[in-house]
This record gives sequence, structure tokens and C-alpha cells, in this order.
Amino acid sequence: MRFSSRVDISAPNPIAAAEAQCKRDGITLGKLNDSNPTRHGLAPALVPEVYTADPRGPRAAREALAAFLTEQGASSVNPDRLYVLSSTSQAYSWLIKLLCDAGDAVLAPKPGYPLIESIARLECVDTVEYQLCFDGSWMIDVAQLRELLNAPDGGRIRALVLINPNNPTGSYVKPSERAAIVNLCREHDVAIIADEVFYDYTLEPFDNNARIAGETGVLTFALDGFSKMLAAPHAKVGWIQVSGPDDDVTEAQRRLDVIADDYLPMSDIIARIIPDLLADAPQQTARVQERVRGNLAALHRLLDADELGVVSVLRAEGGWNVLLRVPSVIDENELVLAMIKRHGVSGQPGYFFDMTSNGYLAISLLPEPDEFERNVRVVLDTVAALIG
Amino acid sequence: MRFSSRVDISAPNPIAAAEAQCKRDGITLGKLNDSNPTRHGLAPALVPEVYTADPRGPRAAREALAAFLTEQGASSVNPDRLYVLSSTSQAYSWLIKLLCDAGDAVLAPKPGYPLIESIARLECVDTVEYQLCFDGSWMIDVAQLRELLNAPDGGRIRALVLINPNNPTGSYVKPSERAAIVNLCREHDVAIIADEVFYDYTLEPFDNNARIAGETGVLTFALDGFSKMLAAPHAKVGWIQVSGPDDDVTEAQRRLDVIADDYLPMSDIIARIIPDLLADAPQQTARVQERVRGNLAALHRLLDADELGVVSVLRAEGGWNVLLRVPSVIDENELVLAMIKRHGVSGQPGYFFDMTSNGYLAISLLPEPDEFERNVRVVLDTVAALIG
Ligand SMILES: Cc1ncc(COP(=O)(O)O)c(C=O)c1O
Ligand SMILES: Cc1ncc(COP(=O)(O)O)c(C=O)c1O
Repeated sequence: MRFSSRVDISAPNPIAAAEAQCKRDGITLGKLNDSNPTRHGLAPALVPEVYTADPRGPRAAREALAAFLTEQGASSVNPDRLYVLSSTSQAYSWLIKLLCDAGDAVLAPKPGYPLIESIARLECVDTVEYQLCFDGSWMIDVAQLRELLNAPDGGRIRALVLINPNNPTGSYVKPSERAAIVNLCREHDVAIIADEVFYDYTLEPFDNNARIAGETGVLTFALDGFSKMLAAPHAKVGWIQVSGPDDDVTEAQRRLDVIADDYLPMSDIIARIIPDLLADAPQQTARVQERVRGNLAALHRLLDADELGVVSVLRAEGGWNVLLRVPSVIDENELVLAMIKRHGVSGQPGYFFDMTSNGYLAISLLPEPDEFERNVRVVLDTVAALIG
Repeated sequence: MRFSSRVDISAPNPIAAAEAQCKRDGITLGKLNDSNPTRHGLAPALVPEVYTADPRGPRAAREALAAFLTEQGASSVNPDRLYVLSSTSQAYSWLIKLLCDAGDAVLAPKPGYPLIESIARLECVDTVEYQLCFDGSWMIDVAQLRELLNAPDGGRIRALVLINPNNPTGSYVKPSERAAIVNLCREHDVAIIADEVFYDYTLEPFDNNARIAGETGVLTFALDGFSKMLAAPHAKVGWIQVSGPDDDVTEAQRRLDVIADDYLPMSDIIARIIPDLLADAPQQTARVQERVRGNLAALHRLLDADELGVVSVLRAEGGWNVLLRVPSVIDENELVLAMIKRHGVSGQPGYFFDMTSNGYLAISLLPEPDEFERNVRVVLDTVAALIG
């Protein structure tokens, strides 16, 4: 695997080398220049912890998280392969730094989560879009991925972002797609960044659905966090799980440790409640799941009962958002501007997510049932008014 | 002021423009696609707050911080000019993104805080060092700064980092230096990043010492946080205070808001205790101050009482670290390796901070008095053994 030249991994000076040797020998050294006040009895009463400054995040938090993920999933998760940080946004930013020099590129799904392009641009990295196609359900255009990677400038592509399930299409990565993509990435020395924040929110179950986290065929960074799992975007807890061929994982972590050590984002104020938050996670996921499934059922009822019958919902397999299809004779901007004017409700049409044709509107399945029904009626009413 | 091209500030689409107009008109819009679960009664019991996703950090925390800073300082601090985030490391990273494209450069002091170069490199940005010179006390070489800015490639310099007081030299920026530097920066369209985390830890008071925070002569970003002020590096609370000519501030904040909005690092779990932490700050600063001053006095006593009399301490005006001068016949690596071997204590010699000559060793003033005295004796003993 190739990595960026942003990370300084030059040979350690003689002092750092001697310190590392002592560490390997189990010798704890004193430090003449230790500027960590919590190791000298000076921490404030409200944050009495002794700060360990672990680049991967506090050990106890990683162990609790690894135990939780192991219990949830099929296979065992190693706490040393986890990086606990503030959000998946931050994870994207670190991984782009790890993998991409300025002018390099990452592949990201279209339609997709718009923040990826913005975050990549902040790293001086381009986003190359690959297509998801809809023919009753969503599929990744693997042939196009292959073309993009084989193109003359395909060598600047350093990572492939998979959103599993994708937002706002709600589509999971299928086993056959995954197999083809892992092969492609391995051939082209491209790492996978798998954003699985919505993974647990299944709307339409299907066989052999699996997390990409833990993939061993190619260097893989799986992202998840409390933002969706716990319905707590304001907790600011996310993580990266590293997997893949052992040599690649070792080299990736050596470099990722340097990045993590420069920022050290995880607060002990948060870390100390991570175990309690994890204990609440199954219940929270179930609560949100119930809301989302209930609203999806209500949506189908409302659309079925609508007299005009020109609004439908695209099949979604997972997540919190679905796409409504509205008559494509209505301009998407016109539709949303009319919703704002008539009902004081704004929305995100398909072009926000780079849908290739006109006539889509994303709707969140999160609101309380009354508000959700009102939102659906706003769309139906506005569509009726515009085509009426 | 020039800014980088990393931040997408392209004209808003018609929907975003209509939303902004409603906001200006005081109209609160509903959102069809609101994916913030905390606005729909779904937040977990441990984090019951409704997440406001304010790019500058939760309003209540910024107001508490602004009130605190106003009380501490001479002039009034506006909460709308504060960005609350996880650390000064993160602040450096955001500001470099705001100001520098790949290949641009920032000026940083030498000797200085080594992390700046590493953080800049992660942003594909170079560090150009400017010299602090010692002649009994430390001075910024303003003539050299002028030369660097006037050099043929001086145009790629987009920011000047001032550490006030600097680490490990412990030197404050003097009023005359500040005036000259502000003029230089204004002439060259270069922003100031003023890292003032050690500001309150005065060791040798002098007249007219002042924070750079609030400087109006040129676009200025002042950094501070709980890491030093509260002896709480593990709380993960830092902030940026923006000041300067109004137009520059407005344009800088418009762009910084985009960066902040992509990461939104501040957790409500931390934010809710920021007022209590601030209430504890004066006491914590005083406690650390007492430790640091006590150890500095002890250091002078120990060095004065030393028979060999070949180790001295450089005059330091502020901070937590001081520099020892050791006989320059001893190689710095040899000295520290001998300390490790003989006493199990490591250290950071001058070359770690880019001192221009051999014979320096940084020592932290934080340890409990007994440990501090042991550390000093380790140095004296090792020096004696090596030159004996
Ligand atoms: C695909 C995807 N990933 C990640 C996130 C958010 O992650 P975080 O809050 O951890 O940055 C979202 C939020 O909408 C999302 O849609
Ligand atoms: C000059 C300077 N700035 C900032 C910091 C640390 O700041 P933070 O913990 O907020 O990243 C340090 C820590 O040693 C420092 O020496």
C-alpha cells in the first residue's frame, strides 16, 4: 500500500531510539521535561484523571468499545486496531491525510453524502464520483469503478469510500459488489474507507448482509460512531477500525499513530462515560429503529392513500432517509421554494446529492409521527399545487 | 487578506439562499430532511441536550468563555468571535487550512514548539523558521522576519505564528516587537496566529506585557485553552479568538465557519461543564503558578549550591519549562543517553527545539518538589560524570 508524504516517519533520533528500546524492555523512564500536569498531581477536581495521551484514545474506552463490537458482530475486535476520535468527519480527514498527497483523489459514491467532497477539498484532495444506479434497487457500477481506476490518471486515486448503507439512497453494499471492489482495490493499491454509521438501521432485510469492518482482503478503515448508533451526534464519539493484510495494517497504524498523536482529540470527560453510553446503545438503536420503521410504514400508507398518486418512494434498504420521487416536470428548486413559501418547510432535492436526473426529494424518517405526517402532506400538497 | 482555495464559498443555491433570507427575517423553517435525532426526542438519557450544531461551538459555552475572558482581560470579548474546539492543535490545523494552499508556508519561531512543523506538514504546508536570539534575554529577530517576507518566495508565507510566551525559551513578545510585527504582517497581507496558552504563567514580570488576543492592526487568531490554564490537557477544550480589521474578520469568519461546520468538534458532554471548569480556572492557574515558581526558585538554589558550577539556567519570563545551559563540550545526545543509562531519566536537548548551538537541556517546572530536585540532581550528576 502507498501512503502520503505528509507524515514524518524519518528515522528516530538517538534519544527517541533509546526511549523506544527501554519501552520494549519494559523499563519506564522518568522525563526531565514532562509537561503533562496531570502526572504531577495538578489535574483539576472536575477532571481528576491522569492523562495518558494515547494516540488511539484512552485504553479503557477502546477496550469497552472492542468488547461491545465483538459482542455485536461475528468476529473478535482488537482494541489495538481501534482509534477513538470525535466524529467520522474527523476520521475522514485523518485517513485522507494518511493516504493522499495534495492533488491525489478519493472515490466517493454518487448520489452520496455531500460532506465527503468538502472534507477532501480541505485536504487539497479531489473527489472522483462513482455511480450508484437505480433499477428497482440501487447497485454500484463496478464496471465504471474499474474504468476510473484504469484511466490514465487513475493512479492518483488512493482510497475508495463505501457508505454502507449509503445516504440518501439507503442501499447496502451487496456481497458480490464487495468481492469485486476488494479485488479491484487490492489490484490498484487503493484502501477502502467504509462508513457504516447507518449499518444497524435495516429497513429491508436481505440475506448475507455484512459489515465491511474487519475486511481482510485489502487495507480497510471502517468508520462508525455514536452519532447514529446512539442518536447522539452531540456526544462526539467516533472510531476507526483498521483491518487488512497484516503488513499493510502495521504500516498504516505506524503512520496513523503520528497523525493521531498530533491531535489527540479524545477527552477524558467523554471517555469515562463511553462504557455507560455503550450499555445504552442497543436500547437507543432499537428506539430509533422503531421510529424510522414506523414512519416508513406511515409514508407508504400516506402515498397509497393520496388521490393524485404521483409521488412514490424509492426502495430503501437501510438508514434514516428515503428518497421521494416527484413528477420530473416540476423543477426541484421550484418545488422546495414553493414548500418554503407555502408551508415554511425546506428540503433537500436530488441535486444536493448529485442525482443524475430531476424529480427527487430526501425525507427524514426521524421526526415524531405527527410531524412526519405533516411533512409528507407538505410535499403532497405542494406537488398537487404545482402540477394542478 | 488572502485566503486559501480549500474552502468552498461558491454562491449558495436558490434553496440555501431562501433559507438564509428566512433566517435574516427571523422566520424558523421546518426541515423535511432533518437528520438531527436530538430534535425529535431521541437523544439518549446521558446526553439529553438538543444538539444545536453551532460551528463556533455551543452558544452557552461561548458566552461563559467570553464573560470569563472579558473579566480576566482589559477589553470586552465578543462570543461571536470565539470558536470553541478540542485543542490548540486543532486550531492550528483549521487556521492553516483557512490561510494556506498546498505549498504555502507559515512562519514559526526557532527555538520553538516542534508540533507546529508537524501539523503544517499534515496540511501540505511548509514551516519557515524565524530566529529568536538570546543575549541575556530572548528577542525576536524582526530584521530577519522582514527579509523572509521580502524574499522572492516570501509571497507564499500566509501566516506568522507567535508563541507568547514562547516554549521552551519562556520569552514574551515585547511591545516594540509586536508593533513592528503587526506592521510587517499588514504590509505583507499575512495573518497572525498567536498561541498564548502559557500567557498567565509569568516567571519574571515586566512592564506593558499584554496578550496579543484582540489585536486590531491585522487579522489575528489568538489561541488558548484549558490545557495549560486549567492544567487539563485531557479536558480537550481550546479556542480561537478572531480580531483585526472588521472586513478581514468578517471574511475570515465566513470561511472559518465552513471549516468548523465540516468538523463540529465540541461535545455537549464537555460543553455543559465548561462554566464550572472556568469557575475553577483562577484557582488552578494559581496552583500551577505556585508549583512552577517554587521549582524555579529551587532550581536557582540547587545550581548556586553546585560545586562544579557549570550548569546555569537561561532567564525565562514565563511558561512551564526552562532551558539549562550545560557545558557545550558535552554532546547533547551523549548527555541524555547517559542520563537514561545512569538514572533512567530521559530529556529533550536543545536540538529538539532547533537551538542553533549545542549545550542546552529543557527542564519542566511542573513535578512535585521532591521529584523536581531529583531531576535537577540527575543533570548535575551526569554532567559531572561526563566532564569529570
Ligand atoms: C454517511 C454519513 N456518515 C457520517 C455521518 C455523520 O458522522 P459524524 O457525526 O460522526 O461526523 C453522517 C451524518 O449525516 C452520514 O450521513
Ligand atoms: C506552545 C504550545 N501550544 C500549545 C500546546 C498544547 O495545546 P493543546 O493541548 O491545546 O493542543 C503546547 C503544549 O505543550 C505548547 O507548548
